[in-house]
Amino acid sequence: MAAPDKPKRTVPRVPKGFRDLPAEDVVARRRMIEQVCRVYEQYGFQPLETPAVEYVDCLGKFLPEADQPDAGVFSWKYDDDEWVALRYDLTAPLARFVAENFQELGTPFRRYQTGPVWRMEKPAPGRFREFTQLDIDIVGAGSMLADAEVACVLADAIEALGIPRGSYLVKMNDRKLLDGLLERLGCDQTKKLRVLRSLDKLDRVGAGGVRDLLGPGRKDPSGDVMEGAGLTPEQIDRAMGFLAAPEGNRARFLEAMAGLVAGSKDGDAGVAEMRELDAILGERGVGDDRVTFSPTIVRGLAYYTGPVLEVNLTFPVEGEGGERTEFGSVAGGGRYDGLVGRFMGQPVPATGASIGVDRLLTALKALKKLPARAGSCPVLVTAIEVKKYRKEYQALAAEIRAAGIPTELYVGGGGVVKQFKYADKRGFTVAVVAGGNELAKNEVSIKDLRMGQEASAGITDRAAWLKDLPGQVTVPREKLLETIRSFLARYETPAAPT
Amino acid sequence: MAAPDKPKRTVPRVPKGFRDLPAEDVVARRRMIEQVCRVYEQYGFQPLETPAVEYVDCLGKFLPEADQPDAGVFSWKYDDDEWVALRYDLTAPLARFVAENFQELGTPFRRYQTGPVWRMEKPAPGRFREFTQLDIDIVGAGSMLADAEVACVLADAIEALGIPRGSYLVKMNDRKLLDGLLERLGCDQTKKLRVLRSLDKLDRVGAGGVRDLLGPGRKDPSGDVMEGAGLTPEQIDRAMGFLAAPEGNRARFLEAMAGLVAGSKDGDAGVAEMRELDAILGERGVGDDRVTFSPTIVRGLAYYTGPVLEVNLTFPVEGEGGERTEFGSVAGGGRYDGLVGRFMGQPVPATGASIGVDRLLTALKALKKLPARAGSCPVLVTAIEVKKYRKEYQALAAEIRAAGIPTELYVGGGGVVKQFKYADKRGFTVAVVAGGNELAKNEVSIKDLRMGQEASAGITDRAAWLKDLPGQVTVPREKLLETIRSFLARYETPAAPT
Repeated sequence: MAAPDKPKRTVPRVPKGFRDLPAEDVVARRRMIEQVCRVYEQYGFQPLETPAVEYVDCLGKFLPEADQPDAGVFSWKYDDDEWVALRYDLTAPLARFVAENFQELGTPFRRYQTGPVWRMEKPAPGRFREFTQLDIDIVGAGSMLADAEVACVLADAIEALGIPRGSYLVKMNDRKLLDGLLERLGCDQTKKLRVLRSLDKLDRVGAGGVRDLLGPGRKDPSGDVMEGAGLTPEQIDRAMGFLAAPEGNRARFLEAMAGLVAGSKDGDAGVAEMRELDAILGERGVGDDRVTFSPTIVRGLAYYTGPVLEVNLTFPVEGEGGERTEFGSVAGGGRYDGLVGRFMGQPVPATGASIGVDRLLTALKALKKLPARAGSCPVLVTAIEVKKYRKEYQALAAEIRAAGIPTELYVGGGGVVKQFKYADKRGFTVAVVAGGNELAKNEVSIKDLRMGQEASAGITDRAAWLKDLPGQVTVPREKLLETIRSFLARYETPAAPT
Repeated sequence: MAAPDKPKRTVPRVPKGFRDLPAEDVVARRRMIEQVCRVYEQYGFQPLETPAVEYVDCLGKFLPEADQPDAGVFSWKYDDDEWVALRYDLTAPLARFVAENFQELGTPFRRYQTGPVWRMEKPAPGRFREFTQLDIDIVGAGSMLADAEVACVLADAIEALGIPRGSYLVKMNDRKLLDGLLERLGCDQTKKLRVLRSLDKLDRVGAGGVRDLLGPGRKDPSGDVMEGAGLTPEQIDRAMGFLAAPEGNRARFLEAMAGLVAGSKDGDAGVAEMRELDAILGERGVGDDRVTFSPTIVRGLAYYTGPVLEVNLTFPVEGEGGERTEFGSVAGGGRYDGLVGRFMGQPVPATGASIGVDRLLTALKALKKLPARAGSCPVLVTAIEVKKYRKEYQALAAEIRAAGIPTELYVGGGGVVKQFKYADKRGFTVAVVAGGNELAKNEVSIKDLRMGQEASAGITDRAAWLKDLPGQVTVPREKLLETIRSFLARYETPAAPT
């Protein structure tokens, strides 16, 4: 044991399932969100912010993991003895907000919101307990025009990010169609959600896996056992037939579905909704290359009641096993006509969608659509003889900043070696150096750090550095800004990501 | 009691101490944060994001309220049996982050961060348990140059928001000076923080209140009893003499302080630090009209070790009792050389400041510096005969959006009355109307809603509306965009806030 009077040092660690986001990612994410929100605003959506914390009963239990009470959320007892939780999405808080302010708002109420949400999920690579969503919703409109607006604004937003037509698809289905299917299968209400969530896993577990989940259950590769829905082999065949209905062509999808659910009241209602959606999309000139219908879109959340959708990125990436696969879903949503109504005693129709911001950012990275060196400061003013020339170093930094060029003044300790190691580490493009020699002649030295980065390894004193390195000049003081600008201009085309 | 089979309706309510932020405030806050961050980036600060949740031992207990374990924070037991909490500021998580990534980062590390923080405070008007901070910090620099950078970047940021010189002051003091004072008072370590927090309350409780707090204690107007520091009358007089030292003139402040703390080691060190700060500020040409020294700056957080500062807005506002008073503090910070070190086993100096975003936004509102109607959508395309002309309404909305003008397509139910009530409620500037008459002649009607807002009260049918109201024209379809633009141009100068 340590000596008793030695203070215990705290170990710095981010909580399990959480992460820090460095400058580059913060900047890239902010730009992406700005681009998407500009499109949302074009469609008349306005921003809203609700708190991170909500009363548990206001959030409700709609998560796929929420079969047990409070599973899936971070919750604790509040000072008025009610339970509160961190929000698990932005939709449940929206429903609470609209219900609380219904008279003042006016409907249809369009809003967008972005922010973190929290889920108590098993941490896995690339899967975090805090993640960012970017939602749009229209509350108070039962018309399929609203669902079409949501689908189209998503398609426009994806294109605004530089993902071209042909590399994404908005895929839609309808929970009423799925209800019709379940009715035809003779599936009771208690099994319904389990069957839907089994169908929703096609992407992850494949057709064989879905058959297992619909029937006896399944052990996943990690060893976790997932209980099955207990359907009969014949029921399973019919359900799989539904998943195999044609996708990618709205007319053929509608024809096949009408046959599969014929005679079911819910099913017929679902076909009617999707026919209307198809007509609206047609009137807009939106073809199957942008918004199409697919039987595989199910969505796991319990609150959907009508059209559901996903945005799929269709460009190929390398899967975990090295195989080529589609990038997959980056957004999802649908109609949830009961969620606001549960506060109101009157039905309030609503529809919307949520972008998984972190996942979409990963896609943009894979497509090399992110700016290089985002968030890094281009210029460092070194302060090698700070005791003598502190005033001059401050003046240099002030002059460059005043010209609109972000500039760090070195305020740490240490001499030339430490300062240039620091400059390399932090990714500056240009360093400004001024010592007694330069200042006596009213000159400054300016170094292109990116050009010199390799060559500078091993240089340990200032004289050698000044003499031997490429991309470095000594110029009259009045050429300071001009020279810095010309050095920075060399890199204005974003470098290819390394 | 209600009938047992009647489902209990959930009451929609935001948790006590929390609030929703409407579009106008979201947009105003976002713009303000962007403007400030642009200045921070000019100084070489880069963004960082840390999670909302941290291990309790990593956050430490530095809040003024944290005399009892876990007071002041929202905390709960995590799945690995350790306690986690919502962050109460952005500084403690930064210290954790830097310590965890020290080798990779390189110092001095400059970062800015914005986001919500949570404190379990007694809710009061304008005081919430979730509020937004915007922080800058420099970690790994012990030089007063770093503290001067922080003071100057704050001053520049305030000016970038349109608050002119003369309406704000960055006021600095030094905890070492305060330590010197306490040493001279003969005050022991356990009393030290209580004395500092008493001095820090001058703004709120006045000189008499501070005297009570330094002595026997004080009952505040709400009836809460605050324990006193138990100083003797003579000690209290000396402490109050310290608060009365000259402010607003760095040279005179330094002279007075040197006398007040003379002979105290800490006090001498504090005087030396502030002399150096004064010299650095002088070299930059920053006078007492921007950054000055004041004995009343103390700061309540336990972790400060050197210079401390506050940004005060000095323009007058009406106080709670109707009296004229200064707007007061919108940012605060200081040097905290021990906070990173407690993880590291080596000292890591650091300094920074935090803007209270909500408070600064209130100041900009008071100064009428916020854009009018921020976040509202200018154009509504009505859909009064949607069954017949759905395609045409969609085409109108698409055309206006394609011209870069944010446009909502009405997707709710109801006829002309409902749609125009909605238009008024949501604050559109222009409504587009097209029925059979207009469309047959290839025309559209365009209404200036702001001009017509008063006149339209009471109009209940479309014919009357089209005939009688001012600010409304029927034009050929090809003049759609031109007419909308000319209507919007009437309001391009932001209207004075109402």
